[in-house]
Amino acid sequence: MKKLRFNKTQQTGSNMIAIRKLDAGLPDFQAHLTALLAFEASEDEAIDQAAARILADVKARGDAAVLEYTNRFDRLSANSVSLLEIGQQELQAALAELSPERRGALQTAADRVRSYHQRQKIECGSDGFSYTEADGTVLGQKVTPLDRVGIYVPGGKAAYPSSVLMNAIPAKVAGVQEIIMVVPTPDGVKNPLVLAAAAIAGVDRVFTIGGAQAVAALAYGTATIPQVDKIVGPGNAYVAAAKRRVFGTVGIDMIAGPSEILVICDGTTDPDWIAMDLFSQAEHDELAQSILLCPDAAYIAAVEASINRQLPLMPRQEVIRTSLVNRGALVKVRDMEHACEIANHIAAEHLEISAENPQHWADRIRHAGAMFLGRFSSEALGDYCAGPNHVLPTSRTARFSSPLGVYDFQKRSSIINISEAGAQTLGQVAAELAYGEGLQAHARSAEYRLKDKPQ
Amino acid sequence: MKKLRFNKTQQTGSNMIAIRKLDAGLPDFQAHLTALLAFEASEDEAIDQAAARILADVKARGDAAVLEYTNRFDRLSANSVSLLEIGQQELQAALAELSPERRGALQTAADRVRSYHQRQKIECGSDGFSYTEADGTVLGQKVTPLDRVGIYVPGGKAAYPSSVLMNAIPAKVAGVQEIIMVVPTPDGVKNPLVLAAAAIAGVDRVFTIGGAQAVAALAYGTATIPQVDKIVGPGNAYVAAAKRRVFGTVGIDMIAGPSEILVICDGTTDPDWIAMDLFSQAEHDELAQSILLCPDAAYIAAVEASINRQLPLMPRQEVIRTSLVNRGALVKVRDMEHACEIANHIAAEHLEISAENPQHWADRIRHAGAMFLGRFSSEALGDYCAGPNHVLPTSRTARFSSPLGVYDFQKRSSIINISEAGAQTLGQVAAELAYGEGLQAHARSAEYRLKDKPQ
Repeated sequence: MKKLRFNKTQQTGSNMIAIRKLDAGLPDFQAHLTALLAFEASEDEAIDQAAARILADVKARGDAAVLEYTNRFDRLSANSVSLLEIGQQELQAALAELSPERRGALQTAADRVRSYHQRQKIECGSDGFSYTEADGTVLGQKVTPLDRVGIYVPGGKAAYPSSVLMNAIPAKVAGVQEIIMVVPTPDGVKNPLVLAAAAIAGVDRVFTIGGAQAVAALAYGTATIPQVDKIVGPGNAYVAAAKRRVFGTVGIDMIAGPSEILVICDGTTDPDWIAMDLFSQAEHDELAQSILLCPDAAYIAAVEASINRQLPLMPRQEVIRTSLVNRGALVKVRDMEHACEIANHIAAEHLEISAENPQHWADRIRHAGAMFLGRFSSEALGDYCAGPNHVLPTSRTARFSSPLGVYDFQKRSSIINISEAGAQTLGQVAAELAYGEGLQAHARSAEYRLKDKPQ
Repeated sequence: MKKLRFNKTQQTGSNMIAIRKLDAGLPDFQAHLTALLAFEASEDEAIDQAAARILADVKARGDAAVLEYTNRFDRLSANSVSLLEIGQQELQAALAELSPERRGALQTAADRVRSYHQRQKIECGSDGFSYTEADGTVLGQKVTPLDRVGIYVPGGKAAYPSSVLMNAIPAKVAGVQEIIMVVPTPDGVKNPLVLAAAAIAGVDRVFTIGGAQAVAALAYGTATIPQVDKIVGPGNAYVAAAKRRVFGTVGIDMIAGPSEILVICDGTTDPDWIAMDLFSQAEHDELAQSILLCPDAAYIAAVEASINRQLPLMPRQEVIRTSLVNRGALVKVRDMEHACEIANHIAAEHLEISAENPQHWADRIRHAGAMFLGRFSSEALGDYCAGPNHVLPTSRTARFSSPLGVYDFQKRSSIINISEAGAQTLGQVAAELAYGEGLQAHARSAEYRLKDKPQ
């Protein structure tokens, strides 16, 4: 993709952040937008091959291979995989040791996430359905939970207890019998908040393993680690490559790209709030993307001024600056209608509609992972405790995929119970089409159920 | 995997088919079953690399590349991709030229498939939901259709008009605005039944292209072929490899393995019917799998006799024989309860419960793509016209995935509309957790919405 140069409407001094400003009314806007959104997960052939080797090794050698890779990559010296398991007692102890404020916040978040997903379970057809036709034929759909699910939780800087809640609780609500969590502990360092979140979410077993070797253990099973039916949760490039490769042996969730926020603002929200909302996405990592769409040039200038004023106060200012400069944008749009059109093209992971009567504009949005409506709905509330899931489709995949939900931990089976009378009419139709496709055994199988069998 | 030798309970003469017979009560049964079910899609590195090259080429050169590959692989000499499009008039003509019987059968099948999926749309939460909390906060979920979907239809021997109906109709019912079908026509040979099915299903545009180049065109778009949001439908190894690689740029359905039937029979169904049901799966291709579970040894012998008697009468007897010998099995189980346990392990694509009171046993089944209940519900009826989808999870993936359905052509967006009062309580919870995760901008963004802002 050819590199585009973006217009900057002002000179940026050494302390000014060079966030790009675009005018959606200009003819080259679509090209600028395409370049801005372009993100391809680096498909590093070496990483992919390394992941493939680890998968094959764990598949062949089981626990022994898991142990070797874990000791090597995480600098541990465990003697057996069973020693890498964290028992329920240790999880409960981690929870008990939290400050009352933090423990209370975690519990409130878990309760609200559970409550939303219980609603989702009821509203999304989890009971299945069936109906009887005039001739007695019954058709329907049975909905059942997955038996066992694996949750990958990253170690190190991206170890988020909120992600434990968001991945485990929908599985529990769906009725999954057993949740196996894996979380690497480089140098043996455990994250107490992550363990406490596992306790609150009701995770059944926790192993301190990570990387492609953890994905392999969950996908194939070992003597110690039970095979699961689906693996969810984010990880590094090795984990992503491994998940892509075991897809089919087990289910996987989406391969997540960098996190994004798109803010549509009509210019009536405090510019400091909007600046901070953009920061809250940008602080995740350097590849995160924060974009503002607004019809009011003066308001965009006010947000830019606020960005420059507030940035030096942020502990993670370097990450925020890199993210905003490389991937951020402040976009002047014709009007709010225009903003909604662009938002449908971007199909953002997080869409804030910070405006008067936000529902009016939300009705025009077809593609978004989550919509935050009104100026009090900052994305941060959704990230932690509003209730809906924070695992959302990134990189424009909201065009075809959904937030993680109870439905990701259920599957459906069709029910077909044909009456004798039904078999008479349907048998003739099926036989006609089967002969048309050259599948005679199909045709005969249908015809055997006819009272007047053709010879 | 080490090769297991299976016991055969009788000598098989030259005309007898050597279908394996297993006893689930023997200690080595699980090993036999594992070997029987083992199927790994050949991950041919050469095919994968060829698909990758074609994808990259079409992405870079668009129509020109699509045209070159199509002319080369399908032995055509078209001058432009637009000449590879089949217009609505030609589709309607194909439909008009069918015999009244075949046309009527196709229409009946389409009507029944549409009717089932309309029911599914209503029952599966397609309206979304929302609820208001005590403090005025509104949470919910919006459900929207995908904008544009691509359907891959194989050419040659596996060109099934029924698959056109099964892939296109759920998309239409979901509300997808535009359906683009691709179907290769090697040597320019078009399948009239496939075109007629496209007409009945309401496919919007049809291009006679196939292979990885068709997947690339749909995933990236070209000047002539519109970019889609999801690609569904089966294809050969190149198509499967290409779909796996574009996953993320667009959505894809499952990568399908060989088709399978598992029949549980209590010994009360005409053995000829069961033998023919096993044939109907086996005739698909040499890798297809047909397994019978039955507690009655005498009945199994009767089915085996029927297999041997009927096989020479089948036009596709060579395919059936190869499939049954290499991948089929007749399994003696302890009782029907035992059969259900094994069926849950196998998680078959098609499960026939040919028994008295089939619902009693169906209640014990947790994992199956589709369940055919009672002796009149032959799989063939479901393949064509019962109504539920015939695109089903194969190779044990029914443990975690579902039949193709309306839900595959819809996606969900979370709705989060926090009231000012809600922002006061949730803001404190979010800030507490955000500080715990070291994400200060998240915390500040939440705190800005508090009336009593911390300094």
